[in-house]
Amino acid sequence: MYLLNWWSIVIPTYTVILIEPRHPGNVGAVARIMKNFEVTSLSLVNPCEINDEAYIRAVHADDILDQACLFSSFENAIESIDFLVATSSKETISEKKHLRNPLYLHEFSERIQEAEGTVGLLFGREDVGLLNEEIARCDVIVKIPTNPEYKALNLSHSVGIVLYQLYLMRAELPEKRTPLDEQEKNLLYQAFIELLHEIDYPEHKKEKTEIMFKRLMSRSIPSKWEYHTLMGVIRTAAKRLNQQKK
Amino acid sequence: MYLLNWWSIVIPTYTVILIEPRHPGNVGAVARIMKNFEVTSLSLVNPCEINDEAYIRAVHADDILDQACLFSSFENAIESIDFLVATSSKETISEKKHLRNPLYLHEFSERIQEAEGTVGLLFGREDVGLLNEEIARCDVIVKIPTNPEYKALNLSHSVGIVLYQLYLMRAELPEKRTPLDEQEKNLLYQAFIELLHEIDYPEHKKEKTEIMFKRLMSRSIPSKWEYHTLMGVIRTAAKRLNQQKK
Repeated sequence: MYLLNWWSIVIPTYTVILIEPRHPGNVGAVARIMKNFEVTSLSLVNPCEINDEAYIRAVHADDILDQACLFSSFENAIESIDFLVATSSKETISEKKHLRNPLYLHEFSERIQEAEGTVGLLFGREDVGLLNEEIARCDVIVKIPTNPEYKALNLSHSVGIVLYQLYLMRAELPEKRTPLDEQEKNLLYQAFIELLHEIDYPEHKKEKTEIMFKRLMSRSIPSKWEYHTLMGVIRTAAKRLNQQKK
Repeated sequence: MYLLNWWSIVIPTYTVILIEPRHPGNVGAVARIMKNFEVTSLSLVNPCEINDEAYIRAVHADDILDQACLFSSFENAIESIDFLVATSSKETISEKKHLRNPLYLHEFSERIQEAEGTVGLLFGREDVGLLNEEIARCDVIVKIPTNPEYKALNLSHSVGIVLYQLYLMRAELPEKRTPLDEQEKNLLYQAFIELLHEIDYPEHKKEKTEIMFKRLMSRSIPSKWEYHTLMGVIRTAAKRLNQQKK
């Protein structure tokens, strides 16, 4: 029916469920963004025709459209779902009407990592969204924070933002920069202090400026290459200045 | 030329810059998602015609299309920008080629909050993205983490995800649930313990079950209303059980 990712055993598996989507282009755009964020299981409840427009918008995610599960009723679509999530931009003011008392997406994305099983991400119709009886069947309502004056997101954008936030939480992002170790940092700071010395920097300003430099470097997290480049510049400058003095 | 939000003085103002977009529908979808995340300034460099299709996709963001600034060159478009951000899904392996050594979007979104001035968010062509000479003019490259097997995001999805992440960082999200205070928590736990007593719960299991209940409640952060409802149920159950015993 659908592909499982290698991590499906230890962390939740997501299924995107679209209720009565009306525009083939939207369904195609949903398939594409699903593939961008490594979610492959798509369920469609009473959808529009999945025509050429859908496939054009899906680009390289045609396999997701091919393997999408079609359902004639909401009940059938959620049968194999362990944990059902409604996404909605509407919410009530009162906490009492807990039917629409949502969790923000980023809060939800942290908590759901602990779950196992199949998580159904339910997205409503382009015009009226999800019905109250559909929302009532969900375990949690998730809200994307938006402009209170214009909350209505395009369907595929809603899906995209939800999948991005979930991907961010579960993806093991490669470390791009190795922070400098203590010795490297000290050598860099020492070189900077020598430079200050060589330019006859006022004694009473030295400490503040050294701290400023340390903070600047800490915030920028230089790569090894940037470190060696910067060291080269500072040391060469200090050396030249020293030679001029002689 | 464009609207400034009220917070433009203290935190960065964002301008979305699209380089040579080819599909009017994409430009419209970008305008809509901008309005969803309260960014109003759109610059277009050599765009396609902004026709009916663009306005249909923009829905209620027609004002953003109307007020978009058109430029015939990249240089003109970035003239008034203080800090220019390239968004790219490509990256090099080597740290040495720092032209494409990116920050992840979520890292960038934290750091940029400290900045003042106009931040230009640059998005490339639908097919070839940004050129190297355009990227070289940028202060930072931002990467949306994606499926390494399928990195190419739809243009408006890239914009949407970037604006969502920035909005999340700057939005003052309303507190939806007031956590229970110590006294309320203790009353709830006490009521639960009484219930265990009334059902003649095995003594040796009590402690574990009490802890389980506390953890369950801590994770769910009940609202005041949920708290009172739950208390009502537990207390009534305990009371009835107690009456039956008499």
